[in-house]
Amino acid sequence: MLPGAKVVPCATLKDVFERVTVKDADVAVVPIENSLAGSVAEHYDMLLAHELFVQQEFLLRIEHNLIAAPGVKTGQVRKVYSHPVALEQCREFFRKNRNVQAVPFYDTAGSVAHVLRERMQDAAAIAGKRAADVYGGKVLRAGLEDNKQNFTRFFLLRRDRRVLVGADKTSIAFALRNIPGALFKALSVFALRDINLTRIESRPIQGRPWEYVFFADYLRGENEAAERALGHLREIADFVKVLGIYPAAGKKR
Amino acid sequence: MLPGAKVVPCATLKDVFERVTVKDADVAVVPIENSLAGSVAEHYDMLLAHELFVQQEFLLRIEHNLIAAPGVKTGQVRKVYSHPVALEQCREFFRKNRNVQAVPFYDTAGSVAHVLRERMQDAAAIAGKRAADVYGGKVLRAGLEDNKQNFTRFFLLRRDRRVLVGADKTSIAFALRNIPGALFKALSVFALRDINLTRIESRPIQGRPWEYVFFADYLRGENEAAERALGHLREIADFVKVLGIYPAAGKKR
Repeated sequence: MLPGAKVVPCATLKDVFERVTVKDADVAVVPIENSLAGSVAEHYDMLLAHELFVQQEFLLRIEHNLIAAPGVKTGQVRKVYSHPVALEQCREFFRKNRNVQAVPFYDTAGSVAHVLRERMQDAAAIAGKRAADVYGGKVLRAGLEDNKQNFTRFFLLRRDRRVLVGADKTSIAFALRNIPGALFKALSVFALRDINLTRIESRPIQGRPWEYVFFADYLRGENEAAERALGHLREIADFVKVLGIYPAAGKKR
Repeated sequence: MLPGAKVVPCATLKDVFERVTVKDADVAVVPIENSLAGSVAEHYDMLLAHELFVQQEFLLRIEHNLIAAPGVKTGQVRKVYSHPVALEQCREFFRKNRNVQAVPFYDTAGSVAHVLRERMQDAAAIAGKRAADVYGGKVLRAGLEDNKQNFTRFFLLRRDRRVLVGADKTSIAFALRNIPGALFKALSVFALRDINLTRIESRPIQGRPWEYVFFADYLRGENEAAERALGHLREIADFVKVLGIYPAAGKKR
């Protein structure tokens, strides 16, 4: 993706956004949505709270692997650690292996590190192949996921608002007054201009229970219709924030 | 809420839905949305997959408490266990107590059980007061949450489609063909009848990447306009499922 780039470890997702903001890092790459699990809600909140700009989107196929310490055989495994979402996506494995217990862990790669650090002989972890390489684990079984239609959408974020050639997709956030028909009116600014909304998501506004910020993506970069639609939306909405303008990624990789 | 009711423990949220479905339990009460953290996405998926009906909604104020084993003093606490969402909602506490480490745990009440079972002298957990009573913990500090506007909305689910007197709110799920303006048309069935949509949420459709099911709530029970709006929506949508018709809960409790 970015050949020669140096990877900077961050303890929290907030760190990821702040390091780029304070110029400690040049870009951030964050998962924003999974085709099975849905939105990574906290990342939407972070996009709203920081002045970073989405410059690219990527779709990556997610593969889950059963990873254990070298020497451990599949038959020895009684506990499998991973993030709850990953465990949930490998339900068929646990149904077929009733004597294996799923143990929720904070993070997929972290669960590999944990199993290897503790030199567990009766446990494994579920994570991407790369975690096995990084922590010296062995892949006992690949492709553990129930559904192969498992993709995660990532955003590449930068401080500067540089729009790439061929950028044909826009992500925005907006909030509406709490009145009947408000969302219908907001969507009319796109529908009346034949602008294709590809996604809409709502998130609560902190401290104002049952009021929401909407996050929307639509297929239109920088042109007159897109500018007019945004102008029109600003008439209707309490606020509008453009999160990024970028080239739409292909449906498959 | 239900005086005299027997509480049935369930290991997973799927169990909660299935026990009611197979008549092992009469009702289920599930959190569906928090005013700070947003939707409990998995519960929306479960509502879609099961034939249970929302009969009531409740809003409960969430209070986080610092809970430790009896005898442990606040000054001794170096680690605090809780669900990541609860930890995140007590950020101010961790900012003021730099020497205290937040440790993510699978569940709030479970973190209290863990700290007490292991008789930890340097650790505490964050959870509701009731968890302290149940597991014999001591509340070291109450009201640890940063934002007092912290409410969780719960659904009470039953097998039968009994609509209570005064039911003025409906929850539905629907899916749309992936064509421009589809959501705008879907919302028009409500807007053109002055029906107030109070919430809309989208979730991915399993196995069909980047297609979504919408979950919507609107203020209308069973009457002619509501029936016509639903009929109109069925003309536009691929499918429509009524999840429940119930009395709207007050904004405060």
